[in-house]
Parts: sequence; C-alpha cells; structure tokens
Amino acid sequence: MTIIMHDLAGADPMLRFSPYCWRIRFALAHKGLPVETIPWRFTDKAAIAFSGQGRVPVIRDGATVVSDSWAIAEYLDAQYPEPTLFGGATAQAHARFINAWADGVMLGGIARLILCDIHDMIDPVDRAYFRQSREARFGMTLEETQAGRETRVEAFRESLLPLRVVLRAQPWLGGAAPSYADAIVAGTLMWPRCCSRFPVLAHDDAVAAWFERMLDLYGGLGRNALRVAA
Amino acid sequence: MTIIMHDLAGADPMLRFSPYCWRIRFALAHKGLPVETIPWRFTDKAAIAFSGQGRVPVIRDGATVVSDSWAIAEYLDAQYPEPTLFGGATAQAHARFINAWADGVMLGGIARLILCDIHDMIDPVDRAYFRQSREARFGMTLEETQAGRETRVEAFRESLLPLRVVLRAQPWLGGAAPSYADAIVAGTLMWPRCCSRFPVLAHDDAVAAWFERMLDLYGGLGRNALRVAA
Repeated sequence: MTIIMHDLAGADPMLRFSPYCWRIRFALAHKGLPVETIPWRFTDKAAIAFSGQGRVPVIRDGATVVSDSWAIAEYLDAQYPEPTLFGGATAQAHARFINAWADGVMLGGIARLILCDIHDMIDPVDRAYFRQSREARFGMTLEETQAGRETRVEAFRESLLPLRVVLRAQPWLGGAAPSYADAIVAGTLMWPRCCSRFPVLAHDDAVAAWFERMLDLYGGLGRNALRVAA
Repeated sequence: MTIIMHDLAGADPMLRFSPYCWRIRFALAHKGLPVETIPWRFTDKAAIAFSGQGRVPVIRDGATVVSDSWAIAEYLDAQYPEPTLFGGATAQAHARFINAWADGVMLGGIARLILCDIHDMIDPVDRAYFRQSREARFGMTLEETQAGRETRVEAFRESLLPLRVVLRAQPWLGGAAPSYADAIVAGTLMWPRCCSRFPVLAHDDAVAAWFERMLDLYGGLGRNALRVAA
C-alpha cells in the first residue's frame, strides 16, 4: 500500500523544502517504499488535525498515522525492517545524537542564513504566520536574521567540523553504506538547497562532496527536486 | 595477558587526566579486560617512541602496539568482540561522529575553562612545554584562555544540547546500555573532573545525572579516580 505523506510546500506546490520531511523522503527511498505526497502549508492545521498535532511530516500507512520525523523513522524501520535504516539498536541510539545535533546546530545555523529567502518562496497565505513566529523565536526581524550572511556563513561551515572529520574517514555517515544518519543530514541540507540560492557549503568541503553523492541516490531524488528560481 | 597502557599523569603519578586515555580506560573496563597503566608525562617522548608517535594512549597487548584512542577502541572491539563496545558496523560509523563532536566541541570548550588548572597540576618538567604549546595553539596566554570562565561556562553548557536531548530520551548514549559513545563523552568529562575543581556541568543537567551514573560503572572506576585537591 502506498504511504501518504503530508509534505511542506512553497507557493509553488512542487517546491518541497522541509528538512524534517526530506529526512523521511530519503528514509522511504532507502527502503524502496512508494509514497504519495500531499502539499501542505504552515497554516493548514486543519488538514493534519487527524494526527493530533500541527506539524509535518505526517504519514498515513494504511490505518496507522505517525508524526514527527524521528518517530516516523523508528516506525518505518520496525514495520519494514529490510533494508535497515538504523542498522540495529545501538546504531539507532547513536543516530539520535546526530539527529539532535542536526536539529540544534545545523537547523539554527541555516535558519540565520535563509529565513528571508524562505519567506519569499512560501505561499502568501503563510507569510504573516511565518514572519510572526520566526521573529518571535529569533528575537529580531527576518531581515536582521539574514543580515551579514556572506561573512557569517563561515562560522556555520566551521560548525560542520564533526561531519567533515567523519566524511574524510568513511564514505557515508552510516559507514560503508548510507543509514538514517545520512538521511538526517542530507534532509537538513535539502532545506537551503530548495528554498534559497545562497550557498551554505563551500565547494571544496568534504561535506559538499558527500552531499553531491546523496543527491544522486535513489534515482536522483534530491538532485531532481525543484529548487527556487535563481 | 594484561594489557599495558601508557597513561598521562600529573605531578602526582596517580593523577590520570587525559580525556583520550579515559575513553580507553572505560572501554577496557566495559570489556572486563585487565590493564596495567604506566604513568607518562607530556615530554617523555622517548618512553613511547616504540609506538612510532608521541601521544598517549598507547597500548601494548602482547606483541601488538596500538596508539590513538579511536584506533585502540577499534582494535579492542575486533580482538575481543564480547561484550561489544560499538554495537556493530553502523553503530561504529555513527559513534565516529560522536567522537569527532567530542574532540571538536567538548575538548575545545573545556580547554578554555581549565588550562591554567592543568598547568598547575602537571609535573614541573612538563610545564614549559605545556605553556608554550597551548599558548601557540590558542593564540593567547594560559591565563587569558581561562579568564571569565564563570560567565563563559554557560556557552559551554549550551553546546552540550545534543547530549541533553539524547539523555532525556534514553538512559545511555548507547541506548539501553552503555556503548563506546558513553566512553567517549564520559572520558572527555573525566578530564576536567580530575584536573580541576571548576564545575563544567550544572548540577540539574541531564548530562550531569548521566555522568554520575557513568562514574559508578565498573566498580566506581571514574568516581574513585584521584582528583586534584580542592
């Protein structure tokens, strides 16, 4: 049965840019599970009220509804064990650290580079909500969050050092083959790739080389995703 | 056969404080492998010249010599598979990220809180080397690296957010049981515990609660370790 997933969309419904939704898109592709995505907007809480909460991704697999990207990944690996996403209980426990690091360090760092770009590519119905919620969260205007990004991007790139060290020693975060750790970080990087033209990675970074390989996996799932116009 | 390990020591040869050596002490204890440690000082390069490099930990297991904490952990898990330290190939690949994060984020953050304290507790023969090498690395005097630590410690504690998120969800970094990920982070925290009385963790932090549990493992290996006098 095809899994249904509510997926955050921009003004163009084909523009899918949520880092959490992308983690699950990669996870589903890793398992070879077909998915039908439904474009969703930030303010369309009613459409996912059936999940008991107000954020995407939400998947519906037959009668089962699961929200929250980490919970969805756990569900998928339990329900469809092969090919494994986590690689066992200890690998899953370790992946939780990478997930927490991506949430805490990567998402915060990237947000301060592209929030204005996101505002400009999301559906007009979402913009007031987006501005208000993000300005409250960051304590400044959207324009201020993004100011000076050309110089500040260096600090973001430096914060990726642990990824760089790992990817110099092994081809994937999962080791010899991709795991959910790769889905987490690549999903996170799909966010700026899809909603901005600002280069968050340096071209000569081992992280960028790995991300290029991730873009080519699963028939080019990441590479072929619609990006905002230059 | 008892494994021999060269272990960084302070002026008091019983004061063992290297974060890398502590990772391996925990790893050996996890496997129930007996170890005989030999106190070593920063400037005693001749004593470990047989390893082909100049840093500890170095272990000698029969005719086998291994240096570098990560390489030693890999060696131990390959040579003595049970109980497992990494928990499988993917878990090991994921642990490498935690190792790189501990090296890049934790060690740098802690160094700026305790470098003067370290200087004061190491053997007098090491002090000139220690001051010169660390002042070159940090681009300031030892006294400057540690200045204002009472306020700066907050930023360090915030940088531990990924640990906190994980340890709210599971009892150990390895999940239901400790893995080498726990040895990495606990070993890193043994460094300030043994060479300083400055509290790098807040008492009400989930990370501190987990570290207390780590100190009690293996017959209180961490808790019973000699600390610098208050």
